[in-house]
Amino acid sequence: MRFAPDQHLHIGSLIFDRLDQIDLTGPYEVLSAIPNATVHIGAKKMEVVKDFHGLPLYPTTTLRDMPKLDILHVPGGPGQQNLMEDEEVLGFIRRQAAEAAFVFSVCTGALLAGAAGLLKGRRATTHWASMEVLPLLGAIPVNERVVIDGNWVFAAGVTSGIDGALRLAAMARGDDVAKQIQLYMQYQPEPPFDSGTPEQAPPHILARQRDAVAALTAARIETAKRVGEKLGLVSSVVAD
Amino acid sequence: MRFAPDQHLHIGSLIFDRLDQIDLTGPYEVLSAIPNATVHIGAKKMEVVKDFHGLPLYPTTTLRDMPKLDILHVPGGPGQQNLMEDEEVLGFIRRQAAEAAFVFSVCTGALLAGAAGLLKGRRATTHWASMEVLPLLGAIPVNERVVIDGNWVFAAGVTSGIDGALRLAAMARGDDVAKQIQLYMQYQPEPPFDSGTPEQAPPHILARQRDAVAALTAARIETAKRVGEKLGLVSSVVAD
Repeated sequence: MRFAPDQHLHIGSLIFDRLDQIDLTGPYEVLSAIPNATVHIGAKKMEVVKDFHGLPLYPTTTLRDMPKLDILHVPGGPGQQNLMEDEEVLGFIRRQAAEAAFVFSVCTGALLAGAAGLLKGRRATTHWASMEVLPLLGAIPVNERVVIDGNWVFAAGVTSGIDGALRLAAMARGDDVAKQIQLYMQYQPEPPFDSGTPEQAPPHILARQRDAVAALTAARIETAKRVGEKLGLVSSVVAD
Repeated sequence: MRFAPDQHLHIGSLIFDRLDQIDLTGPYEVLSAIPNATVHIGAKKMEVVKDFHGLPLYPTTTLRDMPKLDILHVPGGPGQQNLMEDEEVLGFIRRQAAEAAFVFSVCTGALLAGAAGLLKGRRATTHWASMEVLPLLGAIPVNERVVIDGNWVFAAGVTSGIDGALRLAAMARGDDVAKQIQLYMQYQPEPPFDSGTPEQAPPHILARQRDAVAALTAARIETAKRVGEKLGLVSSVVAD
């Protein structure tokens, strides 16, 4: 257990236009239940932020006004692609990550962390469809749902954030706190199909989904190559 | 598969003060990915709605302006307790449920549906801590994570909404659509502990969580008794 029970924790989640909302809200369900903690939702401006399917969210603070965080949470989604050279957002991530006890990356939030120069030599994971982007930003891709590297917790794609957040809650306040949150959330999943990973999905489903994200994946690769070279991040490790 | 592929679907989710946000957002991740559909987020007024831990959401429409829905989605959370005699919200639920192809209840959203008089004689489920409330509203409690009764889909507590939404997506547009959504969401859960149900949780964790919700549960029982009697809903079936 990392924090003393009487230490009030500041947890901060970044939100941005066209994020994937459950990268924020899956973890939020867990993080907001951690005792003696405040969760801040930070955006560039105090205005509605829409997820990539249109869900309207609203921040509790701006990035500039975010307090010094004990836990920094970086979600992903298609909108990450527009922030790979955004100095305000990347500067926020760098600044908070430098002092946070934990950094929690969900899905393609890892690519933002990479663009901030923070993943060089780091074991990491991200959405299955973007694993090949990680080495371009200097990271060592690990094909697991939750990857822990020092004080960084990475969750793979989308719903992986819930499992990552429970691991993080346990690291922050102990196993019993995480178990009680899991019970409150009735988190005993029963996926109706076996199609949650590229390894499990029927081949025709995998092919369709790869096609659906082909253009975005190609754009992510191109951007990461450019950013990776500019920052001197390129690693030679291939995604497993 | 219930709907023709070329039929545009209107899906509508109710939000209200002090809802449990993941009852909305877990399903939203699935429902918003259903092809040829629009998801509307409806509240009483066009203003920020905060979940019970403070997450700010914003509606896309008011309840009055919500179009006729093909799928009605009713989340739950502590705020449900304040709406058990709210004619605007209960009238909205009744009106839309009467014409929707499917009604999807998540967690204690079932108690709102019960207060709207819609669960008499219906098999249903809700959050594990509120199962005993169902018979007070005329429903037959079934201790399963997802319960289907005619055109009603009930998910148990909180994160159960994701599994329920995938079942609903399959019913609406076929198994392949649900499988592709599951793959996009990388929904192959790996809960770090075995504490997601009252049956699995360590006894001391279960005791702590029961204590934590004791006052809310007692209030729910009292309100449901009053509403159930007023509407002539009482059933004699005991929760299993």
